[in-house]
Amino acid sequence: MKQNIYDHPEFFHQYHALRQTPYNFNSLLEQPAFKSLLPNVTNLQMLDIGCGMGEFAYYCIENDAKHVTAIDVSKNMLTIAQREHAHANIDYCLQALEDYDVSPESYDCITSSLSLHYVKDFDTVIGKIARMLRPDGVFIFSMEHPIVTARKTVEDNWIYDDNGNRSHYAVDHYQHEGIREQTWFIDGVVFYHRSISTIINTLIAHGFTIEKMLEPLPDIESIQKLPALEKELRRPSFLLIRAKK
Amino acid sequence: MKQNIYDHPEFFHQYHALRQTPYNFNSLLEQPAFKSLLPNVTNLQMLDIGCGMGEFAYYCIENDAKHVTAIDVSKNMLTIAQREHAHANIDYCLQALEDYDVSPESYDCITSSLSLHYVKDFDTVIGKIARMLRPDGVFIFSMEHPIVTARKTVEDNWIYDDNGNRSHYAVDHYQHEGIREQTWFIDGVVFYHRSISTIINTLIAHGFTIEKMLEPLPDIESIQKLPALEKELRRPSFLLIRAKK
Repeated sequence: MKQNIYDHPEFFHQYHALRQTPYNFNSLLEQPAFKSLLPNVTNLQMLDIGCGMGEFAYYCIENDAKHVTAIDVSKNMLTIAQREHAHANIDYCLQALEDYDVSPESYDCITSSLSLHYVKDFDTVIGKIARMLRPDGVFIFSMEHPIVTARKTVEDNWIYDDNGNRSHYAVDHYQHEGIREQTWFIDGVVFYHRSISTIINTLIAHGFTIEKMLEPLPDIESIQKLPALEKELRRPSFLLIRAKK
Repeated sequence: MKQNIYDHPEFFHQYHALRQTPYNFNSLLEQPAFKSLLPNVTNLQMLDIGCGMGEFAYYCIENDAKHVTAIDVSKNMLTIAQREHAHANIDYCLQALEDYDVSPESYDCITSSLSLHYVKDFDTVIGKIARMLRPDGVFIFSMEHPIVTARKTVEDNWIYDDNGNRSHYAVDHYQHEGIREQTWFIDGVVFYHRSISTIINTLIAHGFTIEKMLEPLPDIESIQKLPALEKELRRPSFLLIRAKK
């Protein structure tokens, strides 16, 4: 989480341009699945970890959440959030979760969209989230799917045939958990691979009950808008979980 | 489950020979993980689905289970079970789970080792298992890992480089759940692929709480005994789950 690629000028420029497009993997695939896991947020006290440009925090307030604390490590992201998604009931904080300090049982619902794969010490972070949640509180998160993060290579994991068509997706090193480097707009983007069983067992060890898991599938309309989504049928990009304390 | 490859003479001959070897994937990888998920079975009333040659049912009795009902669709398997692992407290029944009829809440613990990937209607079978379990009963099962069952091909999913070394493992068609055919000793062995989220959500929908998930790893001693186990570090063969009613 402390890695701050989003303040790297070249990365940020390209990432921001991507997110400005109306049809992207976030808007058509990850966010609809993520929102489908949300409970009724009316009157809830919420924490959004890795809030980025604040769209989701704002969505929660629009859906009658009482208050959202929205944290992120990127100054660039928070500048946009404060400009585009400011609200009296949202507090934007420049903060890594690892350094964030709050009384136990402060939140009814904690969310994290595509940020936990940047976390080095998953166990500590999940323990912290469990403590910050009230009893019966809900934790919803998405991350890069372990099938996608497993292979230790900076190359594309899609393997192509002689005609340039995707032949299959390459998996390797699944049980070697830990650091991975990827080229995503810039070289050396660092994230962490964990197996699905590690993710599940860590949640359970900290007292969570798994309520739902999603490996989201695009619908036909979305594939028509963004044909690249079709490859999601061949292997999932994202893993989403709703867990209850 | 109703598919009965184990009574195909050629398949059975080769399968039996494999299981007679002291070091195989069952004895060194799947069974140790499977047994690690077991509660204390003392005095428990148990059902073992797809009991095969009865080793596991017998293990439970040796560990003071009160009684094991052990069902399987293969006559060949049950003949061996009754010859090698007969016990007054084990009932071996030639029966598919789909056709098995028993009063609700009959068992404290239900187990199934590497048989549920043969089941066509997973939802119905999990519902049946839930009904057969007493409150707080435990369900433990292993199956082929979805990473392994995903790709619709009868070829090896390991992709080799020009030197004949394994380059990576091929995943494809992950979201296309359903029937797969494989060559395993004989052609046309039929099993079913399901995504991890389908497996997890089906359990939860039938009232189960996920207690533990394993994607078992061989230890160094086991790899020394059976070097083929080393590739388990690169992608998992098996998925195991303990769930509580």
